[in-house]
Amino acid sequence: MRKAEARSFLYVLVGSTTVFIMMLTYKAGLMVERKSPGGGMYLPWNRRLAQKSPSLPLNPCSNPLGSQASLPVIYVVTPTYPRPTQIPELVRFAQTLMTVPNVFWIVAEDAPILNIRVATYLNSTGLPHTYIAAPMPEKHRKKKVIPKGVSNRRAGIDWIRRHVEDGVMYFADDDNSYDRRIFEEMRWTKKVSMWPVGLVTHLGVSSPVVIDGRVIGFYDGWFGARKFPVDMAGFAVGIPFLLTVARLRRPEVTRTGKFAHHRSGVRSSDRDYRLLMHKAEMPYRAGYEEDGFLQSLKISKADIEPKASGCTKIYVWHTKTQAARPAPTIARNRTHFSDSNLPSLEKELFLRT
Amino acid sequence: MRKAEARSFLYVLVGSTTVFIMMLTYKAGLMVERKSPGGGMYLPWNRRLAQKSPSLPLNPCSNPLGSQASLPVIYVVTPTYPRPTQIPELVRFAQTLMTVPNVFWIVAEDAPILNIRVATYLNSTGLPHTYIAAPMPEKHRKKKVIPKGVSNRRAGIDWIRRHVEDGVMYFADDDNSYDRRIFEEMRWTKKVSMWPVGLVTHLGVSSPVVIDGRVIGFYDGWFGARKFPVDMAGFAVGIPFLLTVARLRRPEVTRTGKFAHHRSGVRSSDRDYRLLMHKAEMPYRAGYEEDGFLQSLKISKADIEPKASGCTKIYVWHTKTQAARPAPTIARNRTHFSDSNLPSLEKELFLRT
Repeated sequence: MRKAEARSFLYVLVGSTTVFIMMLTYKAGLMVERKSPGGGMYLPWNRRLAQKSPSLPLNPCSNPLGSQASLPVIYVVTPTYPRPTQIPELVRFAQTLMTVPNVFWIVAEDAPILNIRVATYLNSTGLPHTYIAAPMPEKHRKKKVIPKGVSNRRAGIDWIRRHVEDGVMYFADDDNSYDRRIFEEMRWTKKVSMWPVGLVTHLGVSSPVVIDGRVIGFYDGWFGARKFPVDMAGFAVGIPFLLTVARLRRPEVTRTGKFAHHRSGVRSSDRDYRLLMHKAEMPYRAGYEEDGFLQSLKISKADIEPKASGCTKIYVWHTKTQAARPAPTIARNRTHFSDSNLPSLEKELFLRT
Repeated sequence: MRKAEARSFLYVLVGSTTVFIMMLTYKAGLMVERKSPGGGMYLPWNRRLAQKSPSLPLNPCSNPLGSQASLPVIYVVTPTYPRPTQIPELVRFAQTLMTVPNVFWIVAEDAPILNIRVATYLNSTGLPHTYIAAPMPEKHRKKKVIPKGVSNRRAGIDWIRRHVEDGVMYFADDDNSYDRRIFEEMRWTKKVSMWPVGLVTHLGVSSPVVIDGRVIGFYDGWFGARKFPVDMAGFAVGIPFLLTVARLRRPEVTRTGKFAHHRSGVRSSDRDYRLLMHKAEMPYRAGYEEDGFLQSLKISKADIEPKASGCTKIYVWHTKTQAARPAPTIARNRTHFSDSNLPSLEKELFLRT
């Protein structure tokens, strides 16, 4: 009897301590949710935490969400991955976003765990944001041409579906160059807006062809049987429209409820659901990510809103940064510098492993 | 008599028309001064013009000169040159500068003439700035390793000497990545301040070695017999200090006055002047630009103020952008698109010549 009592007491103790620790970590914004259908994990760096951060005063320029309530919010989905140039690229892009009012930044990292240096930097910016780990499924890494950035963008779309009702979604890589004017061009997008992107393929530009304010075709260095031969940085989507597309496919789930448990012997309604969900997403197919996503929105050329003065101005460029090698461990074999700044500096580097 | 009268009338007409046109161009900010001893030409885009520019509303984030009068102004000298990635790089850097209060941007281009697209973009930023053409002398272009960016930076130093009395000077390339915090680190520099620069050489970082708050040496992947083996993005100079160094060398000029006319048979005082002026400048010697300039300031290690938490943080990275090829002329052979956006778009591109 006493043994059983002690055991149940221990269970209660362990259980309540676990709940207490979970509450603490959640409050500190360190709780990791595991809800993404694409295998993503979310770290909800809530805004209160960002504002409490002691590391840096908030940038007076950054416009926190809601400061200009009349403007639609632009949800910028940025895929990123660990590399020596990652922090500098994010820094450069963050500072562009600081000059734009009402943006919310969704940074999705192709890695199984989140990077504390990235998280700390994002908090220091004062930009409203979320930081998601969205690793690419292993099977896609084995492909000849790897579809980079898809798992990240899918996680971003999914986050928007679950948290947002209004505004605009834009896929923005961290190594591109953005004139802040492009954000004002896209802000009032209803369905899909498009504009030219510079430094794409040997032609130097990718753009819709516009006559009399209507998109009649596309100018791009590579067509590849795509219906929409455009660059990822060349379009934005209205979120209410995106949700309408998604909602059309939702009821199928609620009707059956447990499609995930039917690996074999799939019921017809479940199969339909998965097929349709796939269609409303971005495909894991290198070169066809933009086209697949836009086709899944069921739009036609007539739905496209040409921006940037009828696609005559370039406000976005597909710049690429030269790859850098990871740094060696600098403090090793330099014990006579052990009381200098070098050991601390080493922590700032992306080191060779 | 009548012929002579007509001729003099013509002279007066031509003269007054010329003066009138000069006044107009000067008022429009298009006047080019030719005063630089290094062969540079200046285009004084005055602030009134920038504020009159109809192309874009002023960024609410950019802090025009004097908005925070208590802060010293940071004079950022940016060398640039014509290339397909020039505008995107300038855009990206301009937007970083917009998040920093009290900066004045000196953009110096290695080209014989100024680029109207760059000038128009600079005006649209609302940043206080000047745009200078500072072509490299031909003899340096023939060297094995070309000293890039020297003529530009020399023109920048010269502009500061002639127009500024206070503040801080910083050499910032347009392709680097800057965390806006670095500008606050350098703002109160007295003589020379220094900090680490990431992504330099195979070591991944170049930094002063600091013990007990004092610079005792340098950590860099290449020393090359330099006294100050540092990166151009790794230091700033107090302008009153810079002027003191320059002023020591000034009286020599005013005494003789016309050294420029003594190509042969140089008088001793003139020779001294040129020798000393050279010492206070940046040398045309690839790899030794930083060291030569810092040595010309006659500083010692004890004069260096280590910044960025005793050189333990990286706020600047020497990122490099992949070169892009100029675009072909897109509208040619596409006459059926002549009434589309493509001919206008072509004007936005850096075209193959």
